[in-house]
Amino acid sequence: MKLFRYRQDNQVLPGVSVGDVHYDLSQHIKDIDRDFFDHNKVKEVQSLLDSQSLKTITNPEFDAPIYRPGKIICIGLNYRKHAEESGMEVPKEPVVFFKATSSLCGPNDDVVIPKGSQKSDWEVELAVVIGKTASYVSEADAMNYVLGYALHNDVSERAFQLERGGQWVKGKSCDTFAPLGPYIVTADEVADPHNLNLWLKLNGKKIQDGYTSDFVFDIPTVISYLSQFMTLEPGDIISTGTPAGVGLGFNPPVYLKPGDVMELGIDGLGTSKQTAVAYSGQ
Amino acid sequence: MKLFRYRQDNQVLPGVSVGDVHYDLSQHIKDIDRDFFDHNKVKEVQSLLDSQSLKTITNPEFDAPIYRPGKIICIGLNYRKHAEESGMEVPKEPVVFFKATSSLCGPNDDVVIPKGSQKSDWEVELAVVIGKTASYVSEADAMNYVLGYALHNDVSERAFQLERGGQWVKGKSCDTFAPLGPYIVTADEVADPHNLNLWLKLNGKKIQDGYTSDFVFDIPTVISYLSQFMTLEPGDIISTGTPAGVGLGFNPPVYLKPGDVMELGIDGLGTSKQTAVAYSGQ
Repeated sequence: MKLFRYRQDNQVLPGVSVGDVHYDLSQHIKDIDRDFFDHNKVKEVQSLLDSQSLKTITNPEFDAPIYRPGKIICIGLNYRKHAEESGMEVPKEPVVFFKATSSLCGPNDDVVIPKGSQKSDWEVELAVVIGKTASYVSEADAMNYVLGYALHNDVSERAFQLERGGQWVKGKSCDTFAPLGPYIVTADEVADPHNLNLWLKLNGKKIQDGYTSDFVFDIPTVISYLSQFMTLEPGDIISTGTPAGVGLGFNPPVYLKPGDVMELGIDGLGTSKQTAVAYSGQ
Repeated sequence: MKLFRYRQDNQVLPGVSVGDVHYDLSQHIKDIDRDFFDHNKVKEVQSLLDSQSLKTITNPEFDAPIYRPGKIICIGLNYRKHAEESGMEVPKEPVVFFKATSSLCGPNDDVVIPKGSQKSDWEVELAVVIGKTASYVSEADAMNYVLGYALHNDVSERAFQLERGGQWVKGKSCDTFAPLGPYIVTADEVADPHNLNLWLKLNGKKIQDGYTSDFVFDIPTVISYLSQFMTLEPGDIISTGTPAGVGLGFNPPVYLKPGDVMELGIDGLGTSKQTAVAYSGQ
């Protein structure tokens, strides 16, 4: 199934899609959040679908498909060609950084270029959603902890990330820098997460076009590795890195300006579309 | 007032202290969490105290004084001598990294040395708790966003942090690596947060002994700076760095072994005590 959250009357409500049909879950499920996964509500949603009692909805306006996950963990330089275009070595073990969970937004929301930003950039990524608490899990067992997958744009400000001293988190955590979704697609619907095409178009021109078969570190390796350093909790998001074609990799580099449109997609996980806008606050 | 959370009958309940007297809040307040700060429940707690209707409790077993904050943001190398002992330059602008919020534990809980860890280390720090949503705030206005302060041990695994490739987060996010509390002390009780003594004893011997007057970047600078890169939300924790005296700084370095006892404190914020134990899982 495909879980989503949508906006209606100033609320964000949970929903589920099967095929092309969208159903409202708000009469039965409070929200899609840590608690939802912690209590294995996916089963309850399946029962609701089986009972054919859910109301359909049309053209939902998608919000992020999860409310306030505990962490957004990202794997850096996990495609060889992207490491090369970034002028960095292909890592010997996974490079790990966090995005602030406050950076989450809906898949079709505007991406706000931060005040003073000259180098805001895109990164289409496959995000893994954790379904069960994972600590010191083996690679052989790791896929049992995956609830599902989602499309993620790991928007990044390269000057904040690389030129302002210290750690990458400064360039990864701005508001709207994590458009996620439209859906969390449960793992049973993704035949092989290591054989997915992922792509991103800037203003209609495809500039990222990769395959998850090119991961430096595959999903079980990443989950097992991370679980040696921290406990992964239900609802935690692991974004698995971006293929080549980010703005930083162009010669000269190309960065977002107001009005630019990013469209992105991954096989079976849907598509999303964000317009870059200038920061409009004080 | 001093807000805390304590354990009773397999539950964690909210409480408040005035002077040396501890009161239970569980009949009135659900928990001390983001929602608590978002809805300005501190005022409600003050009314409850004024009405003298709260039951006292004795010897509470403290948990972390906040449930699931959105972020734990840390400032690295924010005391000159600590930067020097770490063999790093005094930063020109704040060095920022995150700890996983899953690393939080009670102030007197055991600190678990992770599997395979040889270099687990201590860092007494002043933590700032954010009370209101902060985005692009000025230094002049920054202190208005502070709800209060807490004692924090930013436990760090130096090999994971510095020798495993990439970013520091790997050595900062293990379970039990963020003993926090006993209290969140509201800002009105802290006359000058830039003139506090903070100290840490290892097995009874004082090895960290610093003053927040030695910050490289003071609290308003840090809050204003961070708020340029991400939105700070109610309940978010900013840990402001550690003074000299960490294990990494000794020659040769000294790291935690099972049975080691850390005691730490900050003027007006209470003390905490953690015993290092070996990982006991599989």
